[in-house]
Amino acid sequence: MGTDPAKAGRETTIDPILQLGAVELRDRLANGALRAVELATACADRMEAREETIQAWAWFDREHVLRQAAALDQHRAAGRTIGPLHGLPVGIKDIIDTAGIPTENGTELDASRVPGQDAFVVARLKQAGALVFGKTVTTELAFLAPSKTRNPHDPDRTPGGSSAGSAAAVADHMVPLAIGTQTGGSVIRPAAFCGVTGFKPSFGAIPRTGILPQSASLDTVGVFARSLEDAALLAEPLCGYDALDTATTLAPPPALLKTTQSDSPVPPALAFVRQPCWAEADEETKDAFAELAGTLGDQCVEVDLPPPFTQAGDLRQRVNFAEMAKAYYHYEKRGGDRLSPQLRAALDDGKQVLARDYLSALDWPGILNAGLDEVFDRFDAIITPAAPGAAPAGLETTGSPAFNGLWTFCGTPAVTVPLLATQAGLPMGVQLVGRRGDDARLLRTARWLVGHLSQSA
Amino acid sequence: MGTDPAKAGRETTIDPILQLGAVELRDRLANGALRAVELATACADRMEAREETIQAWAWFDREHVLRQAAALDQHRAAGRTIGPLHGLPVGIKDIIDTAGIPTENGTELDASRVPGQDAFVVARLKQAGALVFGKTVTTELAFLAPSKTRNPHDPDRTPGGSSAGSAAAVADHMVPLAIGTQTGGSVIRPAAFCGVTGFKPSFGAIPRTGILPQSASLDTVGVFARSLEDAALLAEPLCGYDALDTATTLAPPPALLKTTQSDSPVPPALAFVRQPCWAEADEETKDAFAELAGTLGDQCVEVDLPPPFTQAGDLRQRVNFAEMAKAYYHYEKRGGDRLSPQLRAALDDGKQVLARDYLSALDWPGILNAGLDEVFDRFDAIITPAAPGAAPAGLETTGSPAFNGLWTFCGTPAVTVPLLATQAGLPMGVQLVGRRGDDARLLRTARWLVGHLSQSA
Repeated sequence: MGTDPAKAGRETTIDPILQLGAVELRDRLANGALRAVELATACADRMEAREETIQAWAWFDREHVLRQAAALDQHRAAGRTIGPLHGLPVGIKDIIDTAGIPTENGTELDASRVPGQDAFVVARLKQAGALVFGKTVTTELAFLAPSKTRNPHDPDRTPGGSSAGSAAAVADHMVPLAIGTQTGGSVIRPAAFCGVTGFKPSFGAIPRTGILPQSASLDTVGVFARSLEDAALLAEPLCGYDALDTATTLAPPPALLKTTQSDSPVPPALAFVRQPCWAEADEETKDAFAELAGTLGDQCVEVDLPPPFTQAGDLRQRVNFAEMAKAYYHYEKRGGDRLSPQLRAALDDGKQVLARDYLSALDWPGILNAGLDEVFDRFDAIITPAAPGAAPAGLETTGSPAFNGLWTFCGTPAVTVPLLATQAGLPMGVQLVGRRGDDARLLRTARWLVGHLSQSA
Repeated sequence: MGTDPAKAGRETTIDPILQLGAVELRDRLANGALRAVELATACADRMEAREETIQAWAWFDREHVLRQAAALDQHRAAGRTIGPLHGLPVGIKDIIDTAGIPTENGTELDASRVPGQDAFVVARLKQAGALVFGKTVTTELAFLAPSKTRNPHDPDRTPGGSSAGSAAAVADHMVPLAIGTQTGGSVIRPAAFCGVTGFKPSFGAIPRTGILPQSASLDTVGVFARSLEDAALLAEPLCGYDALDTATTLAPPPALLKTTQSDSPVPPALAFVRQPCWAEADEETKDAFAELAGTLGDQCVEVDLPPPFTQAGDLRQRVNFAEMAKAYYHYEKRGGDRLSPQLRAALDDGKQVLARDYLSALDWPGILNAGLDEVFDRFDAIITPAAPGAAPAGLETTGSPAFNGLWTFCGTPAVTVPLLATQAGLPMGVQLVGRRGDDARLLRTARWLVGHLSQSA
């Protein structure tokens, strides 16, 4: 197990409330053992004590937080209907629009930009009774140039990206829950590096209206929490249909929380997949996964993906860069000289992509998923590293998303749980991947794995 | 009114049954006044007598038709459930897959190609009790190179394209109903040239699974009939949701036939729109529409579309050619030398389109529809020519789709009715266009127009 910044007690002691999970907090808020104002105050205190070190927040206003909390307590006291997230503080990645609250997309080109409307997910959060705690730091336009945020486990290491602030804030116990997005590996990677649970639902599960579009075929909303059931609690009310997001469909909402909390009818079968990028994994990762597979014994079988999967990384990048070149054209035009070299180079690449090649790449998720379906007919989930290793030292990069891109491209649900650690005590994530649309079973399977390993530990 | 090949009695006398509309035929079949075998025999006789002149069919088998008809009569005699098209012969464009029946897509590269599965629309036709009469001639891969089909009003003129056979077969009374597709102007144009009713529903209304994909953002299934209510009868059971066609959505099926047959609560307001391509219209068309607008008086107001609409034609073509370059790549690779010069040139153009420019063009339907919504807030429908004029002489081109592309690009429902004629007696179509999704009201408005003009004639 990785170290926990809270347990390590770095720099400040932590309020015991902040060690509780979101489901437990919800229950305490419901039975009167805890008021939203107390929880919000504890979170705000923690944030203010730690922010200078972690730098997870793009916007925060203590008064705004406490006013929301007081209103939510009054709402509850008045006996009115309570949503599933009533009183729970949530951090929101700063590429997600919040009405009246600055949303700067990680670029000075959007300095002081205040949206007039909430994103779909923010509206859903408010309906569910959640408290908008603040805006978490994103990398520049949710791409690869590093942000100011530090890794709570070691401030000299990257927290990953692009949802850097959301991962770090949850890892550092500033908030129990946060929202991010993934176009390559922007949820799973920072969650793994920061030692929290990161969940990227199936493509199209959560509407993206009101969120900075980078790559419409890939952009996926995800969540950060400190347990699988907490992730399910947050993700469930965000799922739905939105006529403005053509990736979404009219479908019954998935019973994420209930299924995650339920027991698997039989011990799940897991497919250990090395992925085409396996050579990028460091030795500690390779050893840890060999050991993990050994511990699982008959529950786990090694599965190799056939040759077409080796191209998936390049194809995903082609789609991403081509769509980004179109989506970010107005940034380039308004202030190309104020974009990072990484982003400018990717935009230049994306501009060269031919429509025909772009459209050909879009055929591949269907083809690859047909291959994955063969795996998911026999296995409940794939297990694979969440990243090549623990968070790399330094703040010059956000680390490699190599182990994430395939699943973003295929639109399969993916979740990382901090089940492994390096010799030095840094967290490493175990990524589980499920069949498209089968998000609830994936979370249940992941919870089985967590429980199984804690028994065998 | 244009001449009617049947009334003109060219070459052969026509069975009175074949002068009846599809709704009337349905009723006679239902009350026992007519058997499916009688109707099918009359259609087959007409087809065999006229096909040498018209050349509307890519595949036809008299025995296959009569066996289906006998089975449908037995089905009815057994008292089993009857679909809305029970016993009605339907012609099917030869880019639409029919299980076990050749579907050659208008290219020798697909000679003797026999699909294993029915297209969604063919499966729906069979469920509705329709009789698959045969496959109608399409231009090469539903593009611009002319087919062998002749115009029933004058065999030395083009029937239009690409749904040439479907339009000609209905116009020539070989079948009461036929199905086609439109990516530019491939339903409305041939319907207008052949003097029949052509209906292109809203984009996404009818699933395209099992139909040759040319341009996924534009390809639209449409229908041919000899009246608006017949077109509604055929289109209604084809509408629906298909998970395999992402353009479709879960939505209640439109009540096309009932609404078409109902009276408008008040006389509709019509917007006469010249379209940016107005200069292409010939003098007879301009005069006829001036007269038509005059006849309508206060019911009709001239409306100019703002400048962005002038680009729509080029933008539609960019999307079409880029998607076609990808979709037809395998034809080019397998036998580029056997494609027509027109198609090869378009593929060469399409290959050069950049992904960024392609994606930018895809933004425009949303923008243009916002402009059209302003029109549809005040008017029930737009009226505009279906084509620059009557079918041009000669068989070297399929005529200009200039008056159709805007509506295909915007995905608005469009219908043409043969309300006008040239001095020489050739039919000219009046095209009516409605708001996206408001297909039933469009048909009702068109029927009002037909009735209004027949009273004032």
